[in-house]
Amino acid sequence: MSTQPKVRHAISPTRAENYPEWYQQVIKAADLAENSPVRGCMVIKPWGYGIWENIQKVLDHKFKETGHQNAYFPLLIPLRFLQQEATHVDGFAKECAVVTHHRLEADEDGNLQPAGKLDEPFVIRPTSETIIGESFSRWVQSYRDLPLLINQWANVMRWEMRTRMFLRTSEFLWQEGHTAHATEEEAREETVRMLHVYADFARDYMAMPVIKGRKTPDERFPGAVETYAIEGLMQDRKALQAGTSHFLGQNFSKASNIQFLDPQGVQQFAWTTSWGSSTRLIGGLIMAHSDDDGLVLPPLMAPRHIAILPIYKPEEKEAVLAYCHKLKAALQGKFLRELPIYVEIDDRDIRGGEKAWQHIKKGTPIRVEVGPRDMQSDSVFVGQRHLQGKVSMSRQGFVDTCETMLMDMQAALLAKAEAFLQANIHDIHDLESFKAFFAEEAPGGFARCHWHPAAIGHPVLAELKVTPRCLPLDQAGIEGVCVLSGEKTTEQVLFARSY
Amino acid sequence: MSTQPKVRHAISPTRAENYPEWYQQVIKAADLAENSPVRGCMVIKPWGYGIWENIQKVLDHKFKETGHQNAYFPLLIPLRFLQQEATHVDGFAKECAVVTHHRLEADEDGNLQPAGKLDEPFVIRPTSETIIGESFSRWVQSYRDLPLLINQWANVMRWEMRTRMFLRTSEFLWQEGHTAHATEEEAREETVRMLHVYADFARDYMAMPVIKGRKTPDERFPGAVETYAIEGLMQDRKALQAGTSHFLGQNFSKASNIQFLDPQGVQQFAWTTSWGSSTRLIGGLIMAHSDDDGLVLPPLMAPRHIAILPIYKPEEKEAVLAYCHKLKAALQGKFLRELPIYVEIDDRDIRGGEKAWQHIKKGTPIRVEVGPRDMQSDSVFVGQRHLQGKVSMSRQGFVDTCETMLMDMQAALLAKAEAFLQANIHDIHDLESFKAFFAEEAPGGFARCHWHPAAIGHPVLAELKVTPRCLPLDQAGIEGVCVLSGEKTTEQVLFARSY
Repeated sequence: MSTQPKVRHAISPTRAENYPEWYQQVIKAADLAENSPVRGCMVIKPWGYGIWENIQKVLDHKFKETGHQNAYFPLLIPLRFLQQEATHVDGFAKECAVVTHHRLEADEDGNLQPAGKLDEPFVIRPTSETIIGESFSRWVQSYRDLPLLINQWANVMRWEMRTRMFLRTSEFLWQEGHTAHATEEEAREETVRMLHVYADFARDYMAMPVIKGRKTPDERFPGAVETYAIEGLMQDRKALQAGTSHFLGQNFSKASNIQFLDPQGVQQFAWTTSWGSSTRLIGGLIMAHSDDDGLVLPPLMAPRHIAILPIYKPEEKEAVLAYCHKLKAALQGKFLRELPIYVEIDDRDIRGGEKAWQHIKKGTPIRVEVGPRDMQSDSVFVGQRHLQGKVSMSRQGFVDTCETMLMDMQAALLAKAEAFLQANIHDIHDLESFKAFFAEEAPGGFARCHWHPAAIGHPVLAELKVTPRCLPLDQAGIEGVCVLSGEKTTEQVLFARSY
Repeated sequence: MSTQPKVRHAISPTRAENYPEWYQQVIKAADLAENSPVRGCMVIKPWGYGIWENIQKVLDHKFKETGHQNAYFPLLIPLRFLQQEATHVDGFAKECAVVTHHRLEADEDGNLQPAGKLDEPFVIRPTSETIIGESFSRWVQSYRDLPLLINQWANVMRWEMRTRMFLRTSEFLWQEGHTAHATEEEAREETVRMLHVYADFARDYMAMPVIKGRKTPDERFPGAVETYAIEGLMQDRKALQAGTSHFLGQNFSKASNIQFLDPQGVQQFAWTTSWGSSTRLIGGLIMAHSDDDGLVLPPLMAPRHIAILPIYKPEEKEAVLAYCHKLKAALQGKFLRELPIYVEIDDRDIRGGEKAWQHIKKGTPIRVEVGPRDMQSDSVFVGQRHLQGKVSMSRQGFVDTCETMLMDMQAALLAKAEAFLQANIHDIHDLESFKAFFAEEAPGGFARCHWHPAAIGHPVLAELKVTPRCLPLDQAGIEGVCVLSGEKTTEQVLFARSY
C-alpha cells in the first residue's frame, strides 16, 4: 500500500479542518491584528493597517470623484438626539457605550473612581445619522444648498457580545456617507450610485465579486426606508455583507428637522441617504483569497508588493546587497493602476527559509530571492504567492514584467473568486431541497429562491441559522412560488448563512 | 480737516479691535468649523477638514520616510492601565470622559437611561501611552524587535472647561507617535528627530516659523523625562505650542513592562518616546497668516488653489464656460512640490461680487475672473489673496506662471511671518522690564530671559498670565542672571502669553 506524503501547511488547522480557527490563525501568522485587553476591541497592527490605508485611499478617491467632501462630527451623541428616531434608537440601544462622568477621583483606598456626573449622558457614536442630521438642519436652508454630499472617516462603537477580529468588533473603523437631496428620486439615485461604488471597489481592487441587492424589510438598517448591500461569498460558503447603502426617505430629516425652501418658496423636508463600509472589508479580503499557508492578498490591496530576500555568506554580503539595491532602484516608479509598487529589501538576520515563510504567511505577492549565483548570471529567483514553485528569470526580464505579473495575479484571484461564487449559487424551489441545501453536513452557499414578504420570520430560518442576504438587483422576473410561504411572486432572494 | 475714507473689511471685528472675536469670525466666514451641541466639541466642516487632510498627507509621508508605520489601538482605556504611571494619571484624571455602562434602557417615562453597568469603567483615551504600552510589552521581546516605530492617527478626548475651536476642544483629531528603543541615546535622538520633523513641516508647508526648544520641568508632559516643543508666534503676539515630542525615559516601559533581552542575554527595560500634533495646527495656520478680510492660506495647505469665476450675461454663458473649462484643462497636472494643484470653476448662481468675497474670506490663493472681454483678448483677470488689486494676464502667461505665483505666495507668507517672529523676540534682563513687556497695554511677544529652575512658580508669572514656552535649542551660552530668581545661569528661556 503506497502512502501519499502528507503535505505540510503553514497554518494549522487548515480551512477544511476548522475554518473559524484557521481564520484566527491566518490573522496571527500574517501579523494583521490582535485582541486587546479592552473587551471586544482589537489592535490593528501595521500590516493590517496598511491594508486599511489602501482601502481608504481608493474609496476616498472614488467618493471625491462622485462629488463628496469629507468632514468630521463629534464622537459623542447626546441621548436626546438618539431618541429622535424611534426605530433607530431601538436598533442601537442594546449596544451603546455610555459616558456618564467627566473626571476621575481617587477614593479612600487610592483607587480611581468616576466623578463629575454629567447632567445628560452621551453615547459613543454607533453611527452618526442623528448628530450629523443636527448639523445638516443648519446647513440646509434653501434648495441651492442641495445636494449636500458628505463623508466621514471615523471610529464607531457597538458593544457586541460575540466578537471576531475585523468581522465584528466593539470598536471599528469605517467611513459613513451622509447626503441630503431635494427630491426622492435624487436620493434614491445616490443610494444606488454608492452601492455600485462599493461593488466596483470590491471587484476591481479586492478581487472579491459581490452580489448587489436590496435587503428584505426585516434586515433593513434601523430607520431606513430601503437598505441596499453588497454580499460576498467566503470560502466556507458563508456570505459576508461588505458594504451597505441606505435610502432614509424623510425619516431622519423629520427627526432632525432638515428643511429647505424649494424654488416655489415652499418649506420641504429633505430626502437623505447614508452608506458605510468598514474594517470588516479586511475580514472579507482574508477569507476570500487566503489558503492553508496564510494570507493571500490581491496586489492592489497589498501594503508591500515585492520582497527582495538577499541570501549570502558573510564574505558575499556587500556584493549581494549592492545587487539587491540596484534591483530595488530599477523597480522605483512602477505602478499598479494609480498605486505605486512598494519594494522592500528584507535583510533581517533570520534564517532564509523562515524569512521566505514569513512573507508567504503575510501574503507578500512576489518574493525575489537573490544569492551569489543569481548575481553571476544577472538573474533573480522569483516566487509568486498564488502559484506553486519558484522560477529563475533574468533581472531585466523581471523588472520589465513585474507589473504584468502583479496584475495577472490580481486577475487570477478575481477569476477564481468569481468562479467560486457562480458555482455556489443554487436555485432552490422547495422547502425540502432548502433544508437539504443548508443541512449541517452540506456545503451550503447561496440559495436563490422565490421570495414573498410573508416568508419573514419563518421558523426554519432560525432553525438553520440562515438569513435572506438580499434581493439581487439582477432579477429574472419569472413567476414562482416562495419556498417558505408558498405565496406566488416574481421576486427572488439569496439566502445564506452569514458573518 | 480731511478725513480718510474708512476702509471696510470683510471680518468684523478686525484684529486690532478684538483679536479673539476676530478669530471666531474668520472661522465662520471661511466656513472651517462650527460649535456642536456636544459641549466643547466642534464640527470640522469640509474646508477645514480639507486643510487637515493636507496636514495628514504631508506629515504621514514624513513619518513613513523616517521609518514609522501606522497602527490603530483601542479608543477606550481600562482605569487600571491609566493608574500605572502616577504622574501621568495625575495629569489627566481631571479631564477624562468615563464610560460606565454598555446599553440604554427606557425608564417608566420612556426616557432612555444608562444600563448594563460595567465592572470596570473605561476612559476615552486622552492620549495612548498606557494602552499602546500594553501592546508594546508583548511586541518587544528581544533587542531584534527594536526600535519599534509606530504612529497612530486618531481622535482623543480631554474634557476641557474653556474651549476654543481648533485651539482647545474636548475632542480633537491628532497623530501620536510611540516608539521603543534599546538605548537611551537612540530614544533621545528619536525625540529630537521628530521635533525637527514638526518644525520643518511648520516652516516649509504652513509657512509658520517656530522656535524649537525644551520645556521647563513644570511644563513637561505628565510622566515625561523631557518634553520638547515647537512654539509659533501668533499675530496678537501670543505663543502657540504646535507640536510636542517627549523623551519618556523608562517611566512608561516600567509602568507597562516593556522589556527586552539584550545581545548579552540580559533583560532590560526599553526607552520610549511619544510625540504628537493635532487639529490645533489649523488654529495656528489661521492666526499666523489671516487678515481683516478673512482666512489667508499658504498655498501648500490650501484644499483648493485656484477658483475660476465665470462672469457672463445669459447669452454669453456657453462661450464663457467653455473658455473656463479650457483653462481648467490647461491647469491639469500642475504641482506644488508633491501636491497637485486643485482648480475649481465656481459657476454657482450668486452675484459675482459676493462670490469673489466668499473666496477671499475662505483664503483661496488665486481667483481668476473670466468674462467675455477677457475671452476676446485671450486673457484672464487674476487676484492673489495676499496682494491688493487684480491684474490682467494672457491666458497662456497665467498657465505658465501659476505654479511660480503660488510658490511665491508661499514664500512671501513665510518671509512675513519670519520677520514678525524675529521682530517680536526681545531680550529682557530685569524684572521691571519684564513686567513692562507683559503689561496689559504693551504689545508683548517672546521675552528672552536668562532662566534658572528656581524661577518655577514665581508669582509674577501667574499675575501676568505668562508661562515659560521653551528653552530654545539654539542657546547663546552666555552667563547671566535669571530675571525671576536672581540666580546665575547660562540658560535662556522664552516667556510669553500663550494659547
